Amino acid sequence: MAAQDIVGSLAHARALGRAGLLDAKALRAIERGLLKVGRELSRGEFTFQPSDEDIHMAVERRLTELVGEPGQRLHTGRSRNDQVALDLRLWCRSATCELVEGLATVQRVLIRRARQHQATLLPGYTHLQRAQPVQLAHYLLAYFEMLDRDQERLQDLDRRTDSSPLGAGALAGSTLGIDRRRPARELGFTRVSGNSLDAVSDRDFVAELTFACALTAVHLSRLCEDLVIWNSREFSFITLPDRWATGSSLMPQKKNPDVLELVRGRTGRPVAALVGILTVLKGLPLSYDRDLQEDRGHLFSAVTSVNESLQVLSGLLAAVQFNRQALAKAAADPELLATDLAEWLVGGGVPFRLAHGTVARTVREAESRQLGLDQVVRESWPRLGFSSESEAERLFQPAHSLGLREQPGSPGPRRTEAAVTAAAQRVAAHRAWARSLRRRLPA
Amino acid sequence: MAAQDIVGSLAHARALGRAGLLDAKALRAIERGLLKVGRELSRGEFTFQPSDEDIHMAVERRLTELVGEPGQRLHTGRSRNDQVALDLRLWCRSATCELVEGLATVQRVLIRRARQHQATLLPGYTHLQRAQPVQLAHYLLAYFEMLDRDQERLQDLDRRTDSSPLGAGALAGSTLGIDRRRPARELGFTRVSGNSLDAVSDRDFVAELTFACALTAVHLSRLCEDLVIWNSREFSFITLPDRWATGSSLMPQKKNPDVLELVRGRTGRPVAALVGILTVLKGLPLSYDRDLQEDRGHLFSAVTSVNESLQVLSGLLAAVQFNRQALAKAAADPELLATDLAEWLVGGGVPFRLAHGTVARTVREAESRQLGLDQVVRESWPRLGFSSESEAERLFQPAHSLGLREQPGSPGPRRTEAAVTAAAQRVAAHRAWARSLRRRLPA
Amino acid sequence: MAAQDIVGSLAHARALGRAGLLDAKALRAIERGLLKVGRELSRGEFTFQPSDEDIHMAVERRLTELVGEPGQRLHTGRSRNDQVALDLRLWCRSATCELVEGLATVQRVLIRRARQHQATLLPGYTHLQRAQPVQLAHYLLAYFEMLDRDQERLQDLDRRTDSSPLGAGALAGSTLGIDRRRPARELGFTRVSGNSLDAVSDRDFVAELTFACALTAVHLSRLCEDLVIWNSREFSFITLPDRWATGSSLMPQKKNPDVLELVRGRTGRPVAALVGILTVLKGLPLSYDRDLQEDRGHLFSAVTSVNESLQVLSGLLAAVQFNRQALAKAAADPELLATDLAEWLVGGGVPFRLAHGTVARTVREAESRQLGLDQVVRESWPRLGFSSESEAERLFQPAHSLGLREQPGSPGPRRTEAAVTAAAQRVAAHRAWARSLRRRLPA
Amino acid sequence: MAAQDIVGSLAHARALGRAGLLDAKALRAIERGLLKVGRELSRGEFTFQPSDEDIHMAVERRLTELVGEPGQRLHTGRSRNDQVALDLRLWCRSATCELVEGLATVQRVLIRRARQHQATLLPGYTHLQRAQPVQLAHYLLAYFEMLDRDQERLQDLDRRTDSSPLGAGALAGSTLGIDRRRPARELGFTRVSGNSLDAVSDRDFVAELTFACALTAVHLSRLCEDLVIWNSREFSFITLPDRWATGSSLMPQKKNPDVLELVRGRTGRPVAALVGILTVLKGLPLSYDRDLQEDRGHLFSAVTSVNESLQVLSGLLAAVQFNRQALAKAAADPELLATDLAEWLVGGGVPFRLAHGTVARTVREAESRQLGLDQVVRESWPRLGFSSESEAERLFQPAHSLGLREQPGSPGPRRTEAAVTAAAQRVAAHRAWARSLRRRLPA
Repeated sequence: MAAQDIVGSLAHARALGRAGLLDAKALRAIERGLLKVGRELSRGEFTFQPSDEDIHMAVERRLTELVGEPGQRLHTGRSRNDQVALDLRLWCRSATCELVEGLATVQRVLIRRARQHQATLLPGYTHLQRAQPVQLAHYLLAYFEMLDRDQERLQDLDRRTDSSPLGAGALAGSTLGIDRRRPARELGFTRVSGNSLDAVSDRDFVAELTFACALTAVHLSRLCEDLVIWNSREFSFITLPDRWATGSSLMPQKKNPDVLELVRGRTGRPVAALVGILTVLKGLPLSYDRDLQEDRGHLFSAVTSVNESLQVLSGLLAAVQFNRQALAKAAADPELLATDLAEWLVGGGVPFRLAHGTVARTVREAESRQLGLDQVVRESWPRLGFSSESEAERLFQPAHSLGLREQPGSPGPRRTEAAVTAAAQRVAAHRAWARSLRRRLPA
Repeated sequence: MAAQDIVGSLAHARALGRAGLLDAKALRAIERGLLKVGRELSRGEFTFQPSDEDIHMAVERRLTELVGEPGQRLHTGRSRNDQVALDLRLWCRSATCELVEGLATVQRVLIRRARQHQATLLPGYTHLQRAQPVQLAHYLLAYFEMLDRDQERLQDLDRRTDSSPLGAGALAGSTLGIDRRRPARELGFTRVSGNSLDAVSDRDFVAELTFACALTAVHLSRLCEDLVIWNSREFSFITLPDRWATGSSLMPQKKNPDVLELVRGRTGRPVAALVGILTVLKGLPLSYDRDLQEDRGHLFSAVTSVNESLQVLSGLLAAVQFNRQALAKAAADPELLATDLAEWLVGGGVPFRLAHGTVARTVREAESRQLGLDQVVRESWPRLGFSSESEAERLFQPAHSLGLREQPGSPGPRRTEAAVTAAAQRVAAHRAWARSLRRRLPA
Repeated sequence: MAAQDIVGSLAHARALGRAGLLDAKALRAIERGLLKVGRELSRGEFTFQPSDEDIHMAVERRLTELVGEPGQRLHTGRSRNDQVALDLRLWCRSATCELVEGLATVQRVLIRRARQHQATLLPGYTHLQRAQPVQLAHYLLAYFEMLDRDQERLQDLDRRTDSSPLGAGALAGSTLGIDRRRPARELGFTRVSGNSLDAVSDRDFVAELTFACALTAVHLSRLCEDLVIWNSREFSFITLPDRWATGSSLMPQKKNPDVLELVRGRTGRPVAALVGILTVLKGLPLSYDRDLQEDRGHLFSAVTSVNESLQVLSGLLAAVQFNRQALAKAAADPELLATDLAEWLVGGGVPFRLAHGTVARTVREAESRQLGLDQVVRESWPRLGFSSESEAERLFQPAHSLGLREQPGSPGPRRTEAAVTAAAQRVAAHRAWARSLRRRLPA
Repeated sequence: MAAQDIVGSLAHARALGRAGLLDAKALRAIERGLLKVGRELSRGEFTFQPSDEDIHMAVERRLTELVGEPGQRLHTGRSRNDQVALDLRLWCRSATCELVEGLATVQRVLIRRARQHQATLLPGYTHLQRAQPVQLAHYLLAYFEMLDRDQERLQDLDRRTDSSPLGAGALAGSTLGIDRRRPARELGFTRVSGNSLDAVSDRDFVAELTFACALTAVHLSRLCEDLVIWNSREFSFITLPDRWATGSSLMPQKKNPDVLELVRGRTGRPVAALVGILTVLKGLPLSYDRDLQEDRGHLFSAVTSVNESLQVLSGLLAAVQFNRQALAKAAADPELLATDLAEWLVGGGVPFRLAHGTVARTVREAESRQLGLDQVVRESWPRLGFSSESEAERLFQPAHSLGLREQPGSPGPRRTEAAVTAAAQRVAAHRAWARSLRRRLPA
């Protein structure tokens, strides 16, 4: 959080100047000094001293070495408590930006792959059992939806992070009459915190961002689970290009989906971090307690791991090869259309429960005779109320089935087309949001 | 979730009617039947059968007993997957309302008590060490702020719960062309879900509501911790009326703050529930898996325990007696104004770090001489740059200190007055939000 | 915990009698009274009063109604603090017994099925990729091992639960000189607690039992995951008898593995409970705080859910049908023996890394020529150093491969035979342990 | 885990030698090479290459650079799967040693301080309310007991870590007939794993060690909570030497217990880690999946943070100053003996419930008259059945009260003396255990 500390101190120094607590010369010295400290830090040239209690004290110590007495004036009217809270909020807002961008990148890949596979059918699964045919596009857009809620959640929570604690002091502000609004604005904040006790002890924004990471990680774990299963020899729905597969140290034939498993396994990090933060916060008395410093490691672990997962998945998803033949074969399983048959009977006036029973019996008959469901249905088209065998046959064309599913959210071809378009617009909006926030945040 | 199941089925039945899949007579029978089943359930007169797989099947079975063939048509074009998702969303939205109202009740008590104690001073603490004087009102409003973020969070997340899954079917909608928008509107939803696979497998809204409960519980645990400490003989800041204290089965003198401890201990429930839900969701393949049914117990536990905690705390906070004398005595500790002294020196041009050092030495001198800090300062007023002993004396009046703290969020008297007023407006807005949502939700 | 409360009070009353604090008549009255209360409770005939603070007070209140003044003497020399701790330990020990028995039941089913499938081969998987052939018996015994560690863990932790807190009083014992050892022995305890402050505030045994449940649940979740995948159409390794599969409310063809998914999803309960308990305990001051009462709900949820999962899985595992044909077909995949080929080359003096490379190239050649690995190897037997084509052919017989794997823990046929026998002995020991503990615990 | 990897590979190489898979020269080259790689790693002179997939591959790559062809033979008959499992077990056993030693160090400090304070009285608290007097020694030994259970738990779990996976290969052992028992023994293991599938996929020992860390951390959090409260101005039971207190950046008078708060806050780490590991493991199919690599970060975080906490607390506990005067004053509160009064009445034949009521009324009388409980009792000694006022007076001497508490586990002086002695013996046994294990583990 060194970068955040420097920009926060710059804004604070300017506020001291405006309050008459630093003269122009001292302010210039501090500004020059802080920028130099910042450069030293970012270039790895900064030397920490054993006496530096933390990064904040180290920056002030080095500043005073560089500029002398003005350095001793920088901490006027503030405490490490509001300073740390400020740095942490700046870090979180920047992390929020990065997550929004990372999600948007994965979303764009999902849209691109969905565009390519609007006509690729596969079985949709419930209970890992084949259920009904859907387009691969529809499947990919399901993950788009999850990530889109993640986007909304991040953008919502930023409104709670967007509150400057600078000026809350240790817990009760300061007697020196330093304006809080201008430095807040300079640092990209819309509001200043409304209660100084709360301002130094609040870590809700950390918990909330970590929760957002945890839920995103859970989404990614589901995607990885699907792809690991699809990558099995038995499914063979996808092939991972060599770059995205790993060999075995012992077994020469293996091509393992390590990347997918690592992303799935990394779900543990933000979930752990969330529990860590809630454990830290539970039962702390007001206001600032040093326990709060423990939020940081958890937060960084959560944000970093999710950012890495998003990055690596955007690459993998762009590269993964969908095996059209295997998908098509699975999607052609006539049992996937058992529900269509029941609904067809309903269309003829049969109560649904009876229709369901009729079809279930027909499925069992097909199984016992080792025939396809479609074969049995075609055989008995008159009894089932079809006007011809070819009408019965048509019911078993997956594309026909999808053509009847044009309600909102359903996998009809026109709906899917529209969903892809709408998705692209939403991603554009997310990216605009991130750009706009990034512009307001200090560099 | 029985009530939710009934109203959801009513809306679905009307949609079937509009789609021509139920004639007017069958629809009327179903409506009458469902209302009767609802009454049986709410009155405890409903008899479950061993064959009832779950509440949803039980309702349909009973309906069919009551109305015959039309009952067999109710499940047309829907699946338990979208039905369950619908019921759960309706339950969550109602729970969100209740939580918003419960929070508002506690917030109102905090405001009332803050109004009574705008002039009651106590030490603000950091690290459970006395730090600087604040009003009790300022302290109470710190908790108001926490709960206010909880309010915003709940109202934000409801926008993600506000999406009707009805019509998503098992995972791929239906071929029967049933309109989704009208029943959604009847059930209080603004939107219908955008992807059928996602609609049946999404439990983000459950996780998010549970997280909101967990964070609220953490806030309450902090408040309880403070009050338990304040209730110790050593602090004696509060007295719990007998109704809110518990005796000991063995020790006749004890008056224990069991309620506060139970609320603090109940933090474990929503935190546990949150972990439970994330554990369930991790690594599930699309779309619906039966694991999802496990979200319910966790959700109910989280919501119920937080609702109870809010209710009990609103009573306790209204009744707790603040011991003005003990508070005043603690607030009069002159060391609480050591920071004011340092800032006073800063006002005279001394760099803050030097001023901090000077005051620290003066504090140590007072300690070693077993004098109050104020006494030592009054002795040496000329050396410290005061114009008179009485000027030095004034610095040690807590009320004087607070009078200098009128920046936003600080505990100056005018700020605190304004904060109380603003808080009341915010609560009014939350209550209006809840009323408005409740009006839209089905009864 | 009513049953525990009754037997605990009986032992306490007898100790009071021996200490001269109850005369024989009063003791007999109390014994009779407590047994009656116990019957009322177990028959559901007990009426709770609004004034009953908890089960412990309710029992004492009812006892006093039944027997008069002697009832007012029962609580002599004890507190609810040691009473609750006692009841909870008794409950935990009984739960430990039940879990050991439940695990043993599943272990016995695993052994039985392993015996049936010592010659059934299937691919062992890593990364859900086919790796090397193993017997189904070896696979089933892997789960046996996990559950066996659970057994050891439970039996270890009981040594820490096995410590009677009775007589620790509220936190400092009693002045009445009541013997602690005899009632402890009567209640099945080997030791009495060594520190009264610790005795009333210790809930480690609750946390430890809950952790044991969580780890067992994780093991079961892995087993369920495997079976859910094996139950997919694509794998078809198992068939679930109708009793263990569930239909779909919408899709007539579905046979869903709901039981497996519920068990997998229930992992969330003990994991949640564990977090709940640790959250409750974190940061509690000594000694007893009412927060501790919150351990109970978490504990019960963890134990109950794992017990149910064990029960249901023992039924399912006994009934599941392994599809020998599908398993055999998958096990015959020649790539599963790529490692054997590399090790064969090593036997001829080739460094392993080079052998690994050679085989990897051969695998790729087979793939590009769309041949089986065995075909390519048989073609080039001289180049690979085989003495004949038939020697090369033999390498691709899975049974031959297993025959070479007779090191401890490996899936050689003789090893597997021995492992089944050893497993049966271990289960017998666990059952003996449970019987022995149950005999010592009060009825 | 580099050190573990080297010693594991050395043992494996020797086993290859014995199996005739490495000649003497190659073996010597490998041994020399591995020792050199080990030195390079421990001195920070090792250069990782971008192509090194992980530490295991890096060691083998470097070994081959150093010794040529023999390096290509090292991985014969093993896989990264059993290699990683081995390294992790070696690491865990070493960590278990360190934790046992760290706990023993804190236990020894507790004993030392207890010895010094066998006669120092303070109020024992329940619900943070003064309850009954105890010695500070008794209080400190309560924490000893908690840590002693931690000791047992660690020593128990090591029996499950004590099982060598080497030779399990990728999942099915090897065809090369390499002996597993001898290398296991060389590496300090008593047993070899009993099932190769389980051996590579088992991470129970990681979860169990992490749980042990979590429970220890919870114990430390309770101790820190007590000390933070005792360090408040209001309690003033302890004084932290300057070395163990931290100043405030803003408030010159502050001496904050940051160390205690950090230890309390660090409870979040092992609790988080535990959840992380359980999240990773949940629902993984057999056998090895790459997700398992994610256990490491969680494990290291848990072990490291608890080790640090133990170290820092042993220093703080040795240095903390107990303020005898403040403790004595609090312990002299006559209400602490209300229970003794009730038990005294019981001694005279009064049923306990009635005695409890009588004392409770007397306490209220004292409160309303603003007198000490002892004063009121002395006034009414005849009514309460004392033989003289001085007999009543004696009842209010805390030391007298403790003298009556000589049952096992109670704070009677002789009991406490004996408890201190017993504690010292137990610590000696733990240290012996750790020494013995360390001797068996490879250096």
